[in-house]
Amino acid sequence: MEIWRVVGELVCTRRVPGLGSTSLRVLKGQKGEIMVASDAVGAPPGKWVFTTLGSAARYAMPDQRTTTDLTICGIIEGWDEA
Amino acid sequence: MEIWRVVGELVCTRRVPGLGSTSLRVLKGQKGEIMVASDAVGAPPGKWVFTTLGSAARYAMPDQRTTTDLTICGIIEGWDEA
Amino acid sequence: MEIWRVVGELVCTRRVPGLGSTSLRVLKGQKGEIMVASDAVGAPPGKWVFTTLGSAARYAMPDQRTTTDLTICGIIEGWDEA
Amino acid sequence: MEIWRVVGELVCTRRVPGLGSTSLRVLKGQKGEIMVASDAVGAPPGKWVFTTLGSAARYAMPDQRTTTDLTICGIIEGWDEA
Amino acid sequence: MEIWRVVGELVCTRRVPGLGSTSLRVLKGQKGEIMVASDAVGAPPGKWVFTTLGSAARYAMPDQRTTTDLTICGIIEGWDEA
Repeated sequence: MEIWRVVGELVCTRRVPGLGSTSLRVLKGQKGEIMVASDAVGAPPGKWVFTTLGSAARYAMPDQRTTTDLTICGIIEGWDEA
Repeated sequence: MEIWRVVGELVCTRRVPGLGSTSLRVLKGQKGEIMVASDAVGAPPGKWVFTTLGSAARYAMPDQRTTTDLTICGIIEGWDEA
Repeated sequence: MEIWRVVGELVCTRRVPGLGSTSLRVLKGQKGEIMVASDAVGAPPGKWVFTTLGSAARYAMPDQRTTTDLTICGIIEGWDEA
Repeated sequence: MEIWRVVGELVCTRRVPGLGSTSLRVLKGQKGEIMVASDAVGAPPGKWVFTTLGSAARYAMPDQRTTTDLTICGIIEGWDEA
Repeated sequence: MEIWRVVGELVCTRRVPGLGSTSLRVLKGQKGEIMVASDAVGAPPGKWVFTTLGSAARYAMPDQRTTTDLTICGIIEGWDEA
């Protein structure tokens, strides 16, 4: 599962029916790259999150037929190194 | 889902039967890399789009048996950072 | 299967139901990149481990419906070059 | 779908039964990286081609049980930017 | 299918049951990166090999339920550029 920071909400002029009304987030990665993800937890801009990709991205969605390959699966608080 | 700019329409001298008459777009990525994608939304050259890869690329196509691993799923207008 | 070093235990404020109470580890890769993985072997911080990704990440879990795309599958002692 | 140039025909001393007598091509990528692909269209050395990966690589083969993760799906003539 | 050189045999202190007694090889890639693969052809250290990843890595194994995402599928002799 990859780590990203939520940048904002994507605005589309057209999208495939399989995305339904899914909220799409714009994410920024550790090297500054930009990606788009479906959001299964309601992650506001500024938060650090982790995502699953591939078929796991669909299994993470409430509707598992959603046409996605990247889904936000959790909001990160931090980590314990002990 | 990755973000790309549509460069143009691919011209082939030969292709596998599983692609049928699917329109194939040439895309340019954030680092200048070039890829080929099937197009599920009708995205003209110059537009910014997002794609799904893997099995989700097939689920996004009207005919889900299309032999593809990358499909254009939406045209990007921009994003809201608030 | 990729090689990583375990950094610590992830702390989340929210996560998808499909992760259940799975222990999530923070891993550091060969280039310093940070990833999150489910843990199928009980790997403490400081250990070198290898992971499977994609559908194999789910097959490696005791509960194969776990919403993961990366699972720790073993603890590395070293390797024999002979 | 990725873009490659065909370099030549792979010669093996041993290979898994699931590859049958499939022709294996050596490809060179946009950054000079070398890969091996099964060939579904008959692409001679020197040609530019595009490939599908993952499960789509198997669906592109005449025998869909072929043990492959990368298949040449078409020969590129060029592209139209209009 | 990716190209690697076999470095040696992995030694683990613990591993998931789904790997059974599969032989695990340590591989070095074109950029010096290190990976672990299950071995379906019996590839000794020093050999150049090619691998399949994802679900094809399982299909290449004698026991297709093996928990792997990378399998050695052949030993490379070289290639013909004519």
